[in-house]
Amino acid sequence: MKPDQAIRIERPDDPRVEAYVSLRERDLTNGHGGRFIVEGKVTLETLLRRGRFEVESLFLCETRLAPLSGILGHVPEGVPVYVAPQGVMDVVAGFAMHRGVLACGRKGKSVPPTEFLRRAPPGERSTLLLLSELSNHDNVGACFRNAAAFGADAVLLDAASCDPLYRKAIRVSSGAALWLPFSQGGTGGGLIEAAEAADYEVWALTPRANAAPLPSLKVPARVALLMGAEGPGLPAEMIARARPVRIPMTDGFDSVNVATAAAIALSHVFAARG
Amino acid sequence: MKPDQAIRIERPDDPRVEAYVSLRERDLTNGHGGRFIVEGKVTLETLLRRGRFEVESLFLCETRLAPLSGILGHVPEGVPVYVAPQGVMDVVAGFAMHRGVLACGRKGKSVPPTEFLRRAPPGERSTLLLLSELSNHDNVGACFRNAAAFGADAVLLDAASCDPLYRKAIRVSSGAALWLPFSQGGTGGGLIEAAEAADYEVWALTPRANAAPLPSLKVPARVALLMGAEGPGLPAEMIARARPVRIPMTDGFDSVNVATAAAIALSHVFAARG
Repeated sequence: MKPDQAIRIERPDDPRVEAYVSLRERDLTNGHGGRFIVEGKVTLETLLRRGRFEVESLFLCETRLAPLSGILGHVPEGVPVYVAPQGVMDVVAGFAMHRGVLACGRKGKSVPPTEFLRRAPPGERSTLLLLSELSNHDNVGACFRNAAAFGADAVLLDAASCDPLYRKAIRVSSGAALWLPFSQGGTGGGLIEAAEAADYEVWALTPRANAAPLPSLKVPARVALLMGAEGPGLPAEMIARARPVRIPMTDGFDSVNVATAAAIALSHVFAARG
Repeated sequence: MKPDQAIRIERPDDPRVEAYVSLRERDLTNGHGGRFIVEGKVTLETLLRRGRFEVESLFLCETRLAPLSGILGHVPEGVPVYVAPQGVMDVVAGFAMHRGVLACGRKGKSVPPTEFLRRAPPGERSTLLLLSELSNHDNVGACFRNAAAFGADAVLLDAASCDPLYRKAIRVSSGAALWLPFSQGGTGGGLIEAAEAADYEVWALTPRANAAPLPSLKVPARVALLMGAEGPGLPAEMIARARPVRIPMTDGFDSVNVATAAAIALSHVFAARG
């Protein structure tokens, strides 16, 4: 970042920080028009150093400029860094921005799952995470964090799942949503088709007693782990189209959290590949 | 529940519902004086059917009485069931009680970890989960959910960890905090001593590269899995006092969530025991 990239914002109605107005309400309506918002130091650093998205601007509390100087060296030339007093920032965002660190990125053109896998380089060994009807942002974010931790190559989500670039999902993902490739669109069935067309064996995670127990399974070179919504889980017709796999657990306990189940399955695949 | 157990509350200042006043502020100050609050239908059912605590009262929105009739059959005789219109309930609790289902239990006398393990029946095979300095309620709740799913016999927490009977921890635990035995007190080092005195091998989970990889480990008959705070993890001196164990993951990714790490370790132990 060059010194002239810091632009002082004195008034909350300054149109240059329009992208940061009323963050919470926009979260609820997905009203960012092709943009997404990143919050906090750790995710900002990920956005700047590893992110695969175009950075549109930064918006920082004036007290954060000095402590962030190391990270700010990674701001691309020409990207404005808006700086404001805490009070102005709070009014713009619509709530107390204790972290004092925001950035805005552009989602760019999205590629649907089938096309996404067609373009991917055909690695010999590959792991995908498929998410169907995951409407909870924390769970989607945690799934990305776990996919990153255990070396998944990409995440595919159906249209009914929530956006991984939702502010809270990015934070819970530890920033993984910013660099781990993903593609979203269509139905859960469409994800199965796309993965199978790309030679992946699809494992449908389910608590059903007649599913194959995960620890006993040999991991194929290309595997796609399919997770369904918490509560109902995957619908029967989707399970029937894939290989049903269960995580052994105590009788009478319904299930673990969906991102936790994904972590256990991903960890099994990762360990099996040594 | 007998018909005369339902007691109509007309005014928010009725002293009989004092235990339910300003729930959120009390959560923050731990100001329930030996009581805890349960919220929602699923956890109420767990409290009544499986819980190990004394139930002091229930507090329901009047519209919930009929839909809950099946569960209310499990309310012990003599326990008052306060019933109020939504508006009165909201004022008492201090926020909109959409679920309309609250109950109050008594924590009872707590037994410190060493004494707790001394009293426990000496099962041949046993799994404990030890939590040190877990100050996030969601993480403590999720640890209980995972301990229950994978058949741990008990959870031990140091005094610095947060209370498993905090309202949100109970909810995130899927009610497991209400029936899975636990004991809290002392330091993390004290938990290690207590577990070793009861013939448990203590595995300290850590991302350190020189720790033993989890999948390669034979599970001893009595194992205690020790988890530290997210972020800093376990301090070096505690790791040195136990067997350091790591979950293999991608280089350069710091770690997964602490409850997720616990789930992976618990799942390994559960599967190894067949």
